[in-house]
Amino acid sequence: MEFNVVNKSIDGLCDKLNTLVNEVRNLKPEDSPIGNCFFNLVQILLIFYLYSFISYRWYFIAKMSDEVVDSNPYSRLMALKRMHIVKNYENIRQKSVVVVGIGGVGSVAAEMLTRCGIGKLLLFDYDKVELANMNRLFYQPNQSGLSKVEAACGTAINPDVDIEIYNMNITTVDNYKVFTEKIRNGGLNDGKVDLVLSCVDNFEARMTINTACNEENQVWMESGVSENAVSGHIQYIEPGRTACFACTPPLIVASNIDERTLKREGVCAASLPTTMAVVAGFLVQNALKYLLEFGEVSPYVGYNALCDFFPRQELLPNPHCGDRYCKQRQEEYQVTYFSLVLYTGSNQGTDVVDTNVVHDDNSWGIELVETSSTLPKKNELQLKEGLVFAYEPSEQSQVSNVFLIVIREAMK
Amino acid sequence: MEFNVVNKSIDGLCDKLNTLVNEVRNLKPEDSPIGNCFFNLVQILLIFYLYSFISYRWYFIAKMSDEVVDSNPYSRLMALKRMHIVKNYENIRQKSVVVVGIGGVGSVAAEMLTRCGIGKLLLFDYDKVELANMNRLFYQPNQSGLSKVEAACGTAINPDVDIEIYNMNITTVDNYKVFTEKIRNGGLNDGKVDLVLSCVDNFEARMTINTACNEENQVWMESGVSENAVSGHIQYIEPGRTACFACTPPLIVASNIDERTLKREGVCAASLPTTMAVVAGFLVQNALKYLLEFGEVSPYVGYNALCDFFPRQELLPNPHCGDRYCKQRQEEYQVTYFSLVLYTGSNQGTDVVDTNVVHDDNSWGIELVETSSTLPKKNELQLKEGLVFAYEPSEQSQVSNVFLIVIREAMK
Repeated sequence: MEFNVVNKSIDGLCDKLNTLVNEVRNLKPEDSPIGNCFFNLVQILLIFYLYSFISYRWYFIAKMSDEVVDSNPYSRLMALKRMHIVKNYENIRQKSVVVVGIGGVGSVAAEMLTRCGIGKLLLFDYDKVELANMNRLFYQPNQSGLSKVEAACGTAINPDVDIEIYNMNITTVDNYKVFTEKIRNGGLNDGKVDLVLSCVDNFEARMTINTACNEENQVWMESGVSENAVSGHIQYIEPGRTACFACTPPLIVASNIDERTLKREGVCAASLPTTMAVVAGFLVQNALKYLLEFGEVSPYVGYNALCDFFPRQELLPNPHCGDRYCKQRQEEYQVTYFSLVLYTGSNQGTDVVDTNVVHDDNSWGIELVETSSTLPKKNELQLKEGLVFAYEPSEQSQVSNVFLIVIREAMK
Repeated sequence: MEFNVVNKSIDGLCDKLNTLVNEVRNLKPEDSPIGNCFFNLVQILLIFYLYSFISYRWYFIAKMSDEVVDSNPYSRLMALKRMHIVKNYENIRQKSVVVVGIGGVGSVAAEMLTRCGIGKLLLFDYDKVELANMNRLFYQPNQSGLSKVEAACGTAINPDVDIEIYNMNITTVDNYKVFTEKIRNGGLNDGKVDLVLSCVDNFEARMTINTACNEENQVWMESGVSENAVSGHIQYIEPGRTACFACTPPLIVASNIDERTLKREGVCAASLPTTMAVVAGFLVQNALKYLLEFGEVSPYVGYNALCDFFPRQELLPNPHCGDRYCKQRQEEYQVTYFSLVLYTGSNQGTDVVDTNVVHDDNSWGIELVETSSTLPKKNELQLKEGLVFAYEPSEQSQVSNVFLIVIREAMK
């Protein structure tokens, strides 16, 4: 049904093109050989341009169809319904997603969501495309010099996706307001957005997204790739229910100076298109599972490329978190959770850990090692200029072991 | 150093452009307003075309540089050396890779290798781009109708990569000869290629690649994505040392008819850009580790997207493999291996399993379950028309348990 509309549009455009060519031909005022030559040239250029513009274009499709024809860009996605993977794939059209950071991970994530037919995308970045970005997927050399959001929007191939771009740094006071306003009202029909994806490459931007999402009670997903290009991770963050980014920050952070100036002149992080694409794939896969309610949304997936190891873990919120909105969301979640337990008389479907001892004997000698004592003290480590310890964990800390392990990992 | 060459090339092109514009201006034969108008139009078009052609283009770079400037497309890759991940990244320029199947996985794999600066790529496919492919990364709607290899070559952004395209089906007798000839002599300086990547979507093409690689004693990597779009795998295959594709074939195969006709009319496989990109990422990451000798080359990595589970296993060759070249390579490998053991007096560095009992007691009750008895017999399963059992495993089979598990998995 939908493809008749597309064919009619193409026919209509062809008619208009023919009319235009005839009009140009009738306009011809003189019969000199050079005049003829130019008229022919202009006609050829016009036809070539319009043909490349209309031919095989992906036209607006009012309703996703599962018809199996070569011209249907959604046939392979709608097949997920027939395969009993997704119940209502077309619901993706009602979803809106914010992507912050349109670099090696974010640009690929935005392209995946575009090709999947997401309802609305809001892209935030303030960087420009450079030739030095060409070792990762997505950007083309001829886009060098353009802002990343402009370049990403310009190459978005799906006319069914509503794309808004914000060429701005969200960490400034004014832009932070725009960012939170868009989380609140930037979705379809001026509603709340459904998900925020963080694809940024620095601590400050991550903390800004974290603060905004805690404030707006917005589910978001974090992603990151290591400086040596061979590991990465994604993390699902639901304010109050899971650890937020401030619950488990790195132990060492920049001290009141711009992080970027900490990088030495003539030195840059390594990056690989492979690691970036894997992390973007994990991120958008998790986003699709969350948005379309299929499979299990993973709380955390790590990727160690050197030995193809994929650590998984779940981080609970830190009751001593430095973010006041996080603590507020934790209280709200506990109220909701305990109401649920009181109401249903069970804790099914929640994530309280069963503390019953499964095995009384332990002949294999497996044990959980106390890790807090191995954390270095402030005076044991010499930090470079511009770096400070964010805090020193107390030995009587009530924070879970998992939390401490994360800190130790961050120090490696 | 290299960027001076690039800048000089741009300056040279700009000079030529100016000369050309002046020549066009001098040619102007008349002073009528319409004549002027056309001359101006042609000049503008010429300038626009040449400017878009030369500006910000990625020029041929004679030697990979690690200089950290925005205009160096290799700075982030060469940084892998400074990070002590790869010893000699620039060796990638001496490597040549065959990619068979330029679809959802193969096109992304080819793009990754291109952006990484591989020496030579040989692309094989016989399919055309359709709008129905737009739900995966890489192809653009305006490439619909082009052959996939042409489209892939046309958008290759790195002029330093030597790309050869073969718009052919390798399973025919004549094309098979071309394919094996290219494995033997298609590399740089007419040498052997370094690696073959299989990104095809059917049994027949996989068996063809397998036969060719066994015959040519060529290391290759297999990849695949399930019909329901939510799982995939990659596998490293070294003739004689690991299981080949014929060592562990699916139990049920098409019987003397074209596999594609087995698909029902109006039904297609589902696919997702996320799963395809993850599998392409794993594949090229493993290829880079193999080609540049860093990290551990994984024998097999699976990906279950629904629960982010990543099975890993190593498959040993089947001494009863139906491929005669596989058996020949197994014998050759055993001769080499035993010579090594006799010569060095040890089996260090090889993959013979240590059969010493590590734990005498087994209080946790862990045991290996005998699986062969659970394999269904021919008469227990009703197959659809066009399908046959490839074989029935003997109960006294000497084939390893791992092999049988794989067959059972393939039947799910």
